[in-house]
Amino acid sequence: MNKSTPQSNDPMSDLTARVIESMADTRDPRFKEVMSCLVRKLHEFIREVDLTPQEWIAGIEFLTATGKMCDSKRQEFILLSDTLGASMMVVMLDQARAERRNEGSRQATVATEATVQGPYYWEGAPELPLGSNIAEGVIGEPAYYSGKVTDTQGRPLAGALLDVWSGDGEGNYDMQVEGAEMAARARLRTDSEGRYSFWSIRPSFYPIPMDGPVGKMINHMGRDPNRPGHIHMMVSAPGHERVTTHLFVANSPYIDTDIVFGVRDSLIIEYQRHEPGVTPDGQTMKSSYWSASYDFCLIPSGL
Amino acid sequence: MNKSTPQSNDPMSDLTARVIESMADTRDPRFKEVMSCLVRKLHEFIREVDLTPQEWIAGIEFLTATGKMCDSKRQEFILLSDTLGASMMVVMLDQARAERRNEGSRQATVATEATVQGPYYWEGAPELPLGSNIAEGVIGEPAYYSGKVTDTQGRPLAGALLDVWSGDGEGNYDMQVEGAEMAARARLRTDSEGRYSFWSIRPSFYPIPMDGPVGKMINHMGRDPNRPGHIHMMVSAPGHERVTTHLFVANSPYIDTDIVFGVRDSLIIEYQRHEPGVTPDGQTMKSSYWSASYDFCLIPSGL
Repeated sequence: MNKSTPQSNDPMSDLTARVIESMADTRDPRFKEVMSCLVRKLHEFIREVDLTPQEWIAGIEFLTATGKMCDSKRQEFILLSDTLGASMMVVMLDQARAERRNEGSRQATVATEATVQGPYYWEGAPELPLGSNIAEGVIGEPAYYSGKVTDTQGRPLAGALLDVWSGDGEGNYDMQVEGAEMAARARLRTDSEGRYSFWSIRPSFYPIPMDGPVGKMINHMGRDPNRPGHIHMMVSAPGHERVTTHLFVANSPYIDTDIVFGVRDSLIIEYQRHEPGVTPDGQTMKSSYWSASYDFCLIPSGL
Repeated sequence: MNKSTPQSNDPMSDLTARVIESMADTRDPRFKEVMSCLVRKLHEFIREVDLTPQEWIAGIEFLTATGKMCDSKRQEFILLSDTLGASMMVVMLDQARAERRNEGSRQATVATEATVQGPYYWEGAPELPLGSNIAEGVIGEPAYYSGKVTDTQGRPLAGALLDVWSGDGEGNYDMQVEGAEMAARARLRTDSEGRYSFWSIRPSFYPIPMDGPVGKMINHMGRDPNRPGHIHMMVSAPGHERVTTHLFVANSPYIDTDIVFGVRDSLIIEYQRHEPGVTPDGQTMKSSYWSASYDFCLIPSGL
């Protein structure tokens, strides 16, 4: 026992106190704060469920297998964090901090809500002109995306950057095929009135990778492994907080049971179905197509 | 969002509720209980420290590196559990359950307290007669160990099995050297009066392996990586709960700061120093030696 820690009549609480006390000499107060809370919650968890040695070793083996599953293409611990809602909690806290920094400024519109980044972001997508089809040759039903980017006072942001990516109409991302080229990805900049538009596909639901320890956990939990259809957008402008988010396809299968808990009501978009004919941007479509509209709103950066 | 979960005005608490709700269909109620508590504590941790995305990814990278460090000889996640006091908490809970099962029976003596097993147990140590030197040729000062094994009513347990192991007098275990043979290990059985005795060495303090992610964590916490000197004993007898424990060398360096929080007051033993001469078991020692005495007490098994 650590002699500097007073002894109570509860040896288990003493243990928790001793572990926290052992960090007294760290020079990193934030690390101490984070690890002290982690130790407290970890010990509470073990005590509240009265964890058995067999369950403990099952946990050790699960964590070990999860680490072994990770490589340059696969991050099983992020998948674990995503599927336990931890990633989404971090996203929500991060945005709440940005909102607190912006408190006191007049707000005419509500900032676009953030959601998880997911594993399929690929830096350096081609920068394409507004109106481009960013999913040339990609399987899926065509969809026209348009809207504008403003700040929280409703002022349009010219030259805001939209970094867009999605899977195809069957739920597969370019990155999932070894050696594949970028597809259904682009960077676009808003015009002088903050407007954007592009063509892509209407994205489909898809399952997370289920061939690892997290997949076994999901199955044992009795959960469905799918994410509802969505398109990713990372939207940024100088002097504003970048928001990483999705637009979700309303009525997509699994919209109520997203395996990574990324769905937020404000991000669910009605895709309008159109018969063949002249499109909003003056093209002529021989097949039916969809359109989706969303206005992004960015929080000004704090100092 | 999950439509079956009522919405509150607190989206972060809603997130936690949705993650727990997602396990509604599991067929394993204990798994659901354990994982629901884990999710609740994990989310509380993230919220209470207001975890940033940078800290979150540092955590992901730490867990990944910890998994990568594990192999057939090294279990870095157990080391993590040990150094955060989680292993010791599981040990204490396990013993508390055994004590609860035994509640109501008359108890004349207090059961021997358990502590962590550690990574150096090697199954199948030689079974040696009482009085044997189990550390022939091992570096260290000789020590004579003796005592008895009883039940909690004080009745001696004949034929109880002591599985004993320790490092040498410099803190090194046989297993730490590739291809080494067993040393300072044995299994011994108590005599008809429940007594045991053997010779080994007086064990030394030693550091846990510090060349992995856990070592970096320990250094960043400002903690000393050593365990105080101790000898491991796994004591069992038919009809009784096996106890896995240590005897700690009183006044050993690091007795107050054991890196794995294994020390318990009742397990700290005074090693008596003796000048050369006739030993308690009638041998003649040409060098000085130590003696240590401890009586083990086992809890009867519940039904």
